[in-house]
Amino acid sequence: MDDVQMQHLIAAKRDGGRIAAPQWAGLIASYMSGRIDDAQMAALLMACVFSGLQAEETQALTEAFVRSGEVLSFPTELSPVVDKHSSGGVADTASLIVVPLVAACGVRVAKLSGRALGHTGGTLDKLEAVAGVRTDLEPATFERIVRDVGCAIAAQSERLVPADKRIYALRDRTATVSSIGLIAASIVSKKIAGGAESIVYDVKCGNGAFMHDPPAALELAQVLVTLTEGFGRAATAVVTDMNEPLGTSIGTALEVIEARDFLQGTRRDPRLLAVCLTLARALLEGAGFDLERADAAVDNALRSGAAAERFGAMLEAQGAVPGALAELEPLGAGVSVRALRGGFVSSIATTALGEQARRLVAACGSRAGIVIAARIGDTVAAGQRLAVVYGDEGAVAEVQAAFALSDEAPAARPLVYAEVTSAGKAFARSTVETK
Amino acid sequence: MDDVQMQHLIAAKRDGGRIAAPQWAGLIASYMSGRIDDAQMAALLMACVFSGLQAEETQALTEAFVRSGEVLSFPTELSPVVDKHSSGGVADTASLIVVPLVAACGVRVAKLSGRALGHTGGTLDKLEAVAGVRTDLEPATFERIVRDVGCAIAAQSERLVPADKRIYALRDRTATVSSIGLIAASIVSKKIAGGAESIVYDVKCGNGAFMHDPPAALELAQVLVTLTEGFGRAATAVVTDMNEPLGTSIGTALEVIEARDFLQGTRRDPRLLAVCLTLARALLEGAGFDLERADAAVDNALRSGAAAERFGAMLEAQGAVPGALAELEPLGAGVSVRALRGGFVSSIATTALGEQARRLVAACGSRAGIVIAARIGDTVAAGQRLAVVYGDEGAVAEVQAAFALSDEAPAARPLVYAEVTSAGKAFARSTVETK
Repeated sequence: MDDVQMQHLIAAKRDGGRIAAPQWAGLIASYMSGRIDDAQMAALLMACVFSGLQAEETQALTEAFVRSGEVLSFPTELSPVVDKHSSGGVADTASLIVVPLVAACGVRVAKLSGRALGHTGGTLDKLEAVAGVRTDLEPATFERIVRDVGCAIAAQSERLVPADKRIYALRDRTATVSSIGLIAASIVSKKIAGGAESIVYDVKCGNGAFMHDPPAALELAQVLVTLTEGFGRAATAVVTDMNEPLGTSIGTALEVIEARDFLQGTRRDPRLLAVCLTLARALLEGAGFDLERADAAVDNALRSGAAAERFGAMLEAQGAVPGALAELEPLGAGVSVRALRGGFVSSIATTALGEQARRLVAACGSRAGIVIAARIGDTVAAGQRLAVVYGDEGAVAEVQAAFALSDEAPAARPLVYAEVTSAGKAFARSTVETK
Repeated sequence: MDDVQMQHLIAAKRDGGRIAAPQWAGLIASYMSGRIDDAQMAALLMACVFSGLQAEETQALTEAFVRSGEVLSFPTELSPVVDKHSSGGVADTASLIVVPLVAACGVRVAKLSGRALGHTGGTLDKLEAVAGVRTDLEPATFERIVRDVGCAIAAQSERLVPADKRIYALRDRTATVSSIGLIAASIVSKKIAGGAESIVYDVKCGNGAFMHDPPAALELAQVLVTLTEGFGRAATAVVTDMNEPLGTSIGTALEVIEARDFLQGTRRDPRLLAVCLTLARALLEGAGFDLERADAAVDNALRSGAAAERFGAMLEAQGAVPGALAELEPLGAGVSVRALRGGFVSSIATTALGEQARRLVAACGSRAGIVIAARIGDTVAAGQRLAVVYGDEGAVAEVQAAFALSDEAPAARPLVYAEVTSAGKAFARSTVETK
């Protein structure tokens, strides 16, 4: 594809038209080979933000992304291999819990993860808070751990989906991130190239997520499922609330500690539990379990300690210093953040807490962060503890300001807004209501 | 301005916001110094195409363009110096006629022109069809000819408005031409840097122009006048019809011949005459003439032969071989294009004629092209001549196809849709109605 052809494609998208599949393939290949430059690609991306992408276009773009690099596949004897993706949130420790939990139920999980993005945490950063753990696994090592332990969490290799990598960087610089089609193509291409046969997407929605309103999140969920099915893989997407931290702990080591304690059964936040059960069920159903069998397997894996054991085994297989997980603890005693007045917790500035925790970790190390002690809908007395800050008490005022207190109880919100299954059907769910 | 600040400005424009004047200045300066790259600029331009530019933004962008290079100014004793710009059309010979005509009325015209763009002709290309004529004049030479002869038509120097030059090339490649704000900033910045104190814009509208519908053309006309006034220069914009060629001759030398014959009074197409009179009046009014004095001066300049003389003097001052203008003639005898049936000429595919004429000139030299012999609304008999093709009779069928014949008379259209004056007031004009 040359400069002039690309110009016509940009004009077509600018004018609301559809770019045909061969053209998407051609323009991505030409971009990767340098025949099309960043300027034309940036103009096309901005036209996509405004004009949107039709379903066939998103599919074609995703295929072009996948074809730009290597594609993993697991040996048949490991089948079914599943994967899970979160669109990013605060205190979203679910991957650390669900991955070993599902593996303990007998289904292999091959999870490719990313780094922290903006105010949200990154699973790789969390894992690396455990001394010795490596996430830059070679494909052969990744496959071996999946085979032997049942699960592994690794960074995506540079050789998978290089086109997405380049275009993602361009989108970031050119303010063209906010397009459901572009977001979906980026997410799904990475999951398809990762080789899993069944994928569960957790689309976060709320003031701590990239999607703020449920309709947009539901639309993304539907596109993710349809796209994934187009590649012959099973898919489920859940839309879950992110108007407050999912778990209670925000940081890197602090979130590993929460996952460890959760799996050991010593501390299970109800919101985190509800989302983890939803995701684990969906992953198991995607691997052929019926709901009853899935629930029984999850219950058994949690109660028997098998899930906790699997977590430790995975970390050790990825290089953890023996005992490092068990010994992990927060930095110092922490400083309490207290309510200045009594009332209902009416809202929590989730993004602000995420940003504050990232600053604490950056300044004071992986064991710094925030643990919240109050949830939206809770009644607190003046002076009651809202959270604990680890690492730097200078953060107390900002954490305090993140909790809005009012005299009236806030309206209840569902925790799981919707679930979109492989059949393409979305149905409202409200497994746990906030108080 | 750095990468991250630019990213925020792109996002602001994407979301329909306004970029403040200092930011426009900063981003253009940073782009010219290489701190901001084509990719970010292209994304911003596409966001401008969709979100539009507010009046203050267009003003700020135009100022930033002007400041990117040199700005000409003429000595006070030459004042008032006027200029004229056409948005581009087919058989638009008006500049070749109006420039010497106004000079012959005693007002100096310093016209900076461009090359052919798309299907439209370029005044520089036409002038250069006269043996010896140069248009790449140094500023000092340009000023000298304006002083001594009263008028000159030159190519814009590379040193004027370099930011527009770079961004125009980028817009062309990235399909971001179609934004009234961007179009206006590009046009007005060049006129301001050219040094004229009073500027007349001819915004072409119809199937042979870049603007197809009158409301968009009127909006552009209004923006051009307001912007120009913002720089303390007087401005008038007229919106004129381009649903058929303006003159009868389409080419380069053919258009010079039409201008020569028009000025000598041997052949004056009524449409071309009407538009030239409108533009000449507007230029003279912009130089302080009242309408009565303007009309008398124009009438005298045409009747006395002063305008024709001035045209020859300008061409000679710009290097024309003596006698070259007088000797200019079409290539060969030409081949007639005849009507296949009788009826009314109901429409003319103006862009197709422009493209065909450009191909003829490219293939057969400057004296090739098309001269039309029928106008919209004319009744023709089967076999009657519609046009003459010079250079290659292979073009006959396509020229024939450009004339649509029907049994019903087409509706009348105004030739001059509107005139926007310095007072910002637009009023409908219909000096000449088509039959």
